[in-house]
Amino acid sequence: MLTWVDGLPAGDVPVTDRGLAYGDGLFETIAVRAGRPRLLERHLRRLSEGRTRLGMACDEALIESELLAFCSVLGDGVVKLILTRGDGLRGYAPPVGGQARRILQGGALPAYPLANAERGVSLYSCRTRLAEQPALAGLKHLNRLEQVLARSEWQDPAFAEGLMRDVSGRVIEGVFSNLFMARLGRLVTADLSRCGVAGVMRAEVLAIAQAAGISVEVRDIAYEELLQADEIFLCNSLYGVWPVIRLEERDWPVGPLTRKLQALVCDVLGS
Amino acid sequence: MLTWVDGLPAGDVPVTDRGLAYGDGLFETIAVRAGRPRLLERHLRRLSEGRTRLGMACDEALIESELLAFCSVLGDGVVKLILTRGDGLRGYAPPVGGQARRILQGGALPAYPLANAERGVSLYSCRTRLAEQPALAGLKHLNRLEQVLARSEWQDPAFAEGLMRDVSGRVIEGVFSNLFMARLGRLVTADLSRCGVAGVMRAEVLAIAQAAGISVEVRDIAYEELLQADEIFLCNSLYGVWPVIRLEERDWPVGPLTRKLQALVCDVLGS
Repeated sequence: MLTWVDGLPAGDVPVTDRGLAYGDGLFETIAVRAGRPRLLERHLRRLSEGRTRLGMACDEALIESELLAFCSVLGDGVVKLILTRGDGLRGYAPPVGGQARRILQGGALPAYPLANAERGVSLYSCRTRLAEQPALAGLKHLNRLEQVLARSEWQDPAFAEGLMRDVSGRVIEGVFSNLFMARLGRLVTADLSRCGVAGVMRAEVLAIAQAAGISVEVRDIAYEELLQADEIFLCNSLYGVWPVIRLEERDWPVGPLTRKLQALVCDVLGS
Repeated sequence: MLTWVDGLPAGDVPVTDRGLAYGDGLFETIAVRAGRPRLLERHLRRLSEGRTRLGMACDEALIESELLAFCSVLGDGVVKLILTRGDGLRGYAPPVGGQARRILQGGALPAYPLANAERGVSLYSCRTRLAEQPALAGLKHLNRLEQVLARSEWQDPAFAEGLMRDVSGRVIEGVFSNLFMARLGRLVTADLSRCGVAGVMRAEVLAIAQAAGISVEVRDIAYEELLQADEIFLCNSLYGVWPVIRLEERDWPVGPLTRKLQALVCDVLGS
């Protein structure tokens, strides 16, 4: 595996890194084609917003130049960029004047079954709920134990993803995807102001849908409402769009809105 | 700084470590005197409970033997033991048959002002709230961004600690301590079934108080109730007990119950 730390080839970080100690950092998972990162601006914008909200100092131009150089070496695949608050001494207080550590890991794109995109996926209904924490909601930060617990709930490969609800029961997202539903021609995705990860592909789907004249709502979704949706699909920045064809005892056909957006997203990902 | 990884002197971990990627792990901060860890059984018991709840496999005898060997090399100071779920490939699913990585870091005890224990401390009232997540409540896991944000709120050294409440406003704990209040001769500490870290020293104080015939309650605490307490104190496994003498506009003297428990805890810590 290709890995760089702070711009140089390296496979390790000090045990004093605050990313390890506290999950004090952010990450991005970026598709790379022909040496170029896809949806680069959206990834950098989310990273920048995350840094601002966590109060992490970093040279943004440096992050971008290292990422671009790394991608050109990688060629095709996926890059995981981790940004931590660097080394800590002791205690939670962020070090004064500290600089973020940049970690880049490159590998092949995950080998998801083609059928996931073509025929759709079954969604596992996770018991693990997302806590409501507005201070961290939307961020792709390194505190991901909820996702680890949720993903531990099933081993059956018949389920490609798991549905996560918040502690109040609202529908939020997949374990590693965002979720959309369509109802009477309108597209709906969850409001992420209390919890959830505001995915780069979610933002792209919202933009694409609006540009295509599709009505879009970002709001709370009750579980019962999801079960009555006309269409459901998942998205993330690696696989694009997966139709959902089964959840609990309910089945769905792959709908026209899902297919339309899937095709538009494919163009963006260049696949 | 003295550091071991998986039983051998080392200062780095692979960038693929799941502790770094997801905060997928646990930690303990242990006082060491004359080469021996204090409150060892309580630390090991909490670690074991955490491993069970997170589903992390590890050889417990190995952890203990490495910890004891490390402490005997360190002599006096503090040991931070981090246990992560080891290396991940990609994705949240825990690797099948994976073994936990053991990281030991040793250093001097923090140089807290003596006045903190003797005259008491002022408590900063943090705006950052603790999310309610029963699946993780009580654990000393590596997802600590809430504490990082809370500790970032103040730089004034006049505040030795910060008070954290949950999203519903209940009093829970300090940023790196647990909290007790006394009211009409009874000792009360927060119920930690929704959030918070069930500190080893909290458990010790509860046991000591009960053995001393002091009435103890573990239950929800409203903020208004805290402000009307007769005494408040903080505790953790490094500094023992700190009386709280100021919070918002309210002042407290150092009370008799606080002094009594502080003395009993000092005996346990061997200081």
